[in-house]
Amino acid sequence: MTVMQCNCGREAFYWRRHSGEVLCKKCFMKSVERTVLRTIKREGLFGPKDRIMVALSGGKDSLALLSILSKIERKYDTEIFAVTIDEGVRGYREEGLNIAKRVAGELGIEHRIVSFKEAYGNSLEEIYNLASSKGIKLLGCTFCGVLRRRLINEAAIKFGATKVATGHNLDDEAQTVFINLMRGDVARMIRLGTKPLKVREGFVPRVKPLRYIPEKEIAIYVYLKGYPLYERECPYVRASLRDEVRDILNRIEQRHPGTKFSMVRSVDKLSKLLKGEVGEIKYCKRCGSPSGREVCRMCELLSILGLSSER
Amino acid sequence: MTVMQCNCGREAFYWRRHSGEVLCKKCFMKSVERTVLRTIKREGLFGPKDRIMVALSGGKDSLALLSILSKIERKYDTEIFAVTIDEGVRGYREEGLNIAKRVAGELGIEHRIVSFKEAYGNSLEEIYNLASSKGIKLLGCTFCGVLRRRLINEAAIKFGATKVATGHNLDDEAQTVFINLMRGDVARMIRLGTKPLKVREGFVPRVKPLRYIPEKEIAIYVYLKGYPLYERECPYVRASLRDEVRDILNRIEQRHPGTKFSMVRSVDKLSKLLKGEVGEIKYCKRCGSPSGREVCRMCELLSILGLSSER
Repeated sequence: MTVMQCNCGREAFYWRRHSGEVLCKKCFMKSVERTVLRTIKREGLFGPKDRIMVALSGGKDSLALLSILSKIERKYDTEIFAVTIDEGVRGYREEGLNIAKRVAGELGIEHRIVSFKEAYGNSLEEIYNLASSKGIKLLGCTFCGVLRRRLINEAAIKFGATKVATGHNLDDEAQTVFINLMRGDVARMIRLGTKPLKVREGFVPRVKPLRYIPEKEIAIYVYLKGYPLYERECPYVRASLRDEVRDILNRIEQRHPGTKFSMVRSVDKLSKLLKGEVGEIKYCKRCGSPSGREVCRMCELLSILGLSSER
Repeated sequence: MTVMQCNCGREAFYWRRHSGEVLCKKCFMKSVERTVLRTIKREGLFGPKDRIMVALSGGKDSLALLSILSKIERKYDTEIFAVTIDEGVRGYREEGLNIAKRVAGELGIEHRIVSFKEAYGNSLEEIYNLASSKGIKLLGCTFCGVLRRRLINEAAIKFGATKVATGHNLDDEAQTVFINLMRGDVARMIRLGTKPLKVREGFVPRVKPLRYIPEKEIAIYVYLKGYPLYERECPYVRASLRDEVRDILNRIEQRHPGTKFSMVRSVDKLSKLLKGEVGEIKYCKRCGSPSGREVCRMCELLSILGLSSER
């Protein structure tokens, strides 16, 4: 019986189907870290003297991101700190907060918590109840996502960050490519691709150093690091188009390894060809999300709920 | 009990899910024809004095195409004729040939038959046997497709056509978009979109007037026309990536009507933004297919089989 071996001679642990590589634990970890470093360099995500705020939910993606960035930090003259958003969902958020605190502590990284309650005067639970009492149906994660993104931006400004790093992985990106294609939303699809970071007043640029790491490899990385996997699901999660697309892409990837990569690379190529220009994209002047309107529908809804303040 | 009614007052027959329209038989037919006419105008597919060769397999798409073009012909100062390629597959091709002959006759359209045997000295069956005897495995439809496309082009030149019209429908186009995205083949994806027809020496431009008609609507159109549905499958057909993608897109369309449209429109938008420029596309100098090489792999294979002659 032959034992599959990594190039380094150690016993193999992981078969990377899309590339054919067979890796031991150590080489697997290194390879993930190398891909992140390459993404940062190639896409010019961080410059010298950047102060990076890591959006740390406590989920596997953000843990992997924090861990890898804290390692890479020494190579760049950058500062890192982490912020966790506390939406205020009892029985769900506490675990993530504890994990985030613990891992940031272990890595010796400054960690801050910013809450919906503090920023909006209401926790997510209270906001849902408020909406419900006004006969307004809120749309699962979309709504919370807007509030969270806005708070992340405000925290970045308050704490002097020059970049916000999020844990979006290859699967997230491929799903977004496909969703935008399904919707015929070419502008958003192209925005996703590699492009020079645009500085918009009042908004700290967001970067995604893990966008070329498959979700599965992030899960393995975090497992090998010994970090806890935070598997609890938010009670407000609803089945979404993204879930459907996730299933579809996973099934395709299973039969055609490398498909997710190709999808994301396609958009990168298009974005490069178009030099990031896809006609004029308008952004909501309150939350900064791309929107055809001055103030996006979500922010309008927030106004109605009395949760919105002009920035 | 209320009977669903078309806007014209007649009894409804078809519910177009992606638009919400409810149509009677007559309005359904008109609406399909109008979409084709709009595509021709918007994409500038035919100019005055064009002589159009319809690639008529006898399958539903090409029958619908011939029928609609023969109707539209009067509005434009164009000439139409049809060509059927006889690959020489016994028990399969005869039925298509007969249907093609019959329908072209009924529509009063000039019809010609061009065979592999005549052009390549061998029928498809003989070519497969030849390859097999040389230990070469031919790839299902890809190979036959190259031979067929080349022959269509040669027929177009020989018979003085200025355009070749093919029956590719919305489903075909959406599948191709997705396959190209899966492969990261941005250049081919963009070529698919609306763009000014490029004239390349030795190649008659191909146009796809049905690219915005869903396959299902074409089937219904042909059925309502009373044309026979030619359902026999070529014995050389093999399960392909396209079959997989067809299933996936059909399932998505079922849950999210309009997805196929959005996908094709996305590519049209991109193509317009890029003005059809996606770096330099090279074409095989023998068959005219896009290829990174001077002579594509398929044509190389044909040389090996002794079936190729310089054009």
